[in-house]
Amino acid sequence: MSATVVESREWYLAAYAPEGIPTSDHLKIRCVSLALDAIPEQHVVLETLFVSVEPYLRGRMTGLEEGLYFAQFNLNEVVSAFGVGRVIMSKDSDYGEGDIVICPSTSFAEYCVVSSQNLRKVEPNAGIPLPEYLGLLGIPGLAAWVGIEVIAEPIKAGSNVFISAAASAVGIYAGQLAKLKGCRVVGSTGTDDKVKLIKEEFGYDDAFNYHTEKDYDAALTRYFPNGIDIYLDNVGGKMLEAVLNHVNKHAKVSLCGMISGYNKVWTEREGVRNLLNLIGKQVKMQGYMVGSYFDRFGDFEKEMESHLKEGKIVSKIKIVHGVENFLESLGSLFTSSNIGKIVIQVK
Amino acid sequence: MSATVVESREWYLAAYAPEGIPTSDHLKIRCVSLALDAIPEQHVVLETLFVSVEPYLRGRMTGLEEGLYFAQFNLNEVVSAFGVGRVIMSKDSDYGEGDIVICPSTSFAEYCVVSSQNLRKVEPNAGIPLPEYLGLLGIPGLAAWVGIEVIAEPIKAGSNVFISAAASAVGIYAGQLAKLKGCRVVGSTGTDDKVKLIKEEFGYDDAFNYHTEKDYDAALTRYFPNGIDIYLDNVGGKMLEAVLNHVNKHAKVSLCGMISGYNKVWTEREGVRNLLNLIGKQVKMQGYMVGSYFDRFGDFEKEMESHLKEGKIVSKIKIVHGVENFLESLGSLFTSSNIGKIVIQVK
Repeated sequence: MSATVVESREWYLAAYAPEGIPTSDHLKIRCVSLALDAIPEQHVVLETLFVSVEPYLRGRMTGLEEGLYFAQFNLNEVVSAFGVGRVIMSKDSDYGEGDIVICPSTSFAEYCVVSSQNLRKVEPNAGIPLPEYLGLLGIPGLAAWVGIEVIAEPIKAGSNVFISAAASAVGIYAGQLAKLKGCRVVGSTGTDDKVKLIKEEFGYDDAFNYHTEKDYDAALTRYFPNGIDIYLDNVGGKMLEAVLNHVNKHAKVSLCGMISGYNKVWTEREGVRNLLNLIGKQVKMQGYMVGSYFDRFGDFEKEMESHLKEGKIVSKIKIVHGVENFLESLGSLFTSSNIGKIVIQVK
Repeated sequence: MSATVVESREWYLAAYAPEGIPTSDHLKIRCVSLALDAIPEQHVVLETLFVSVEPYLRGRMTGLEEGLYFAQFNLNEVVSAFGVGRVIMSKDSDYGEGDIVICPSTSFAEYCVVSSQNLRKVEPNAGIPLPEYLGLLGIPGLAAWVGIEVIAEPIKAGSNVFISAAASAVGIYAGQLAKLKGCRVVGSTGTDDKVKLIKEEFGYDDAFNYHTEKDYDAALTRYFPNGIDIYLDNVGGKMLEAVLNHVNKHAKVSLCGMISGYNKVWTEREGVRNLLNLIGKQVKMQGYMVGSYFDRFGDFEKEMESHLKEGKIVSKIKIVHGVENFLESLGSLFTSSNIGKIVIQVK
């Protein structure tokens, strides 16, 4: 039997980047040949359709021994994230050629060989655009749902909710979920255009630009005259510290991400000095990783699909064409240029 | 009817102490006359028997507008805390002369007039020494119980528990509660004598002196080769930061107090730079005030009385005779000299 071979361009980690935004010194592209017949049992070959560009990927490239947050990619390892692919070869009888699947370790590559154990089939004609499985119905949607509906439960209508990095994928979904619960929602984001956008398109009651409102404490005094009941933190550092001066009794802080710290070693990060307020206001602050909530995926998906089909939640996905644009897209997460979810369309 | 008058020495707040340990410039004693017949309805006069010297009292004397942690005493207000008193005059038919009561706002004074709304009668011959109602069955006991059994639940046997200020009243009770749950318990405290004591008398598996073990991170590496599952924090600052480098997945941090910060304004406190670990390890960190758990007092008291009567928990109360010694006793909480609970015996 002759072996069928496909050529695939793939991104791999050439060097660790302990600090700063990764560059072409750290992430490189190479071309490999995959022999389709040579894959192990319980594996499939995917033709990559879409891969999600996630902020946490950056943390997997530091090479630091912190060991506490991010499992590190190995040097020369292909970089992967959640993605959607089409099965073109299968050594698992549950999957056949042509199946469309969600895979948590889809390579930033044209083709990839993956274990069939963590795949989930999707119906391409179910009325949901495929990239949405990486957005509202994917990791950022789940992160928003866990942060608002699981960690911060029970949510009372009228609660005052603050969300940082509010124009990020998680931010725009979380804000809308909190609005659907009857909350008042205010967000912070990095440009005036994004302030306008999240108010006009994504239902935020109010928002401010954290670059121009340099005194976060004063800003929060204005935007939260009645204090903050729920804070979904995507930023950490000085913003978290400012929030802790405005929390109400029994407030909940859902720690989703701390983008202010990702490009720094921990000893260089801004310390939070007012944690005593967690005691005075009896605050619950809880960090989470969506991977621990996959057992709740059914509940999440049912609720989100219903919101999506009823038009109660607006999604926002930026499709970047071409796997070669991964590095630039990753960098854009750490500037103020990004709105919503970024997905690379490979095929 | 002739008015009966008693003379009473009482401590009052003469000046706020924003930083440092309060001195005789801040807390002064004065003599007042109380006309017993002149008290309002639903009030009683107590002859003070015992009053509890609590670390949180210090926070009520800063006069700072933080507003988030401690309700401030007013200037010239009598300083009060949990205490045990004997009713000598009552304008509430539920209380008669001679009743022994626990009162959450017992003055550091020989006599005091208090509302009868928050009193609780105790049976003086129930086999429990009266000061124990301010120790194991009082605020420190409840603080230990909430921190270990409520915030950190469910506790698995074999969990690795770390307790700072381990020779404090809360620390010695909390350590023993954790041992009763089958945990391995390690504490930090301020002298070698206290290290020895908490291991030999209060059942700690191990302990270290945080003055001589200056590198907390290295110490925790040695004492917790398998990481920390539960941390009861009484200290905050650098110790909390070090702990967050050693937490296991789904660890719980019960924030009971942050004595490292009480004598400093918040902007001067040590910032915690590694909160990102709360996300990576999906830690729940929760602050609490015992006042919010009085609805659980029945469960708490039943469990603790049973432990006490069965000899499963050893208590440690230092009785200081004479109300005039309050200031010095308060100061001793902030040095390394103190072990267990300090109670002022007034009568």
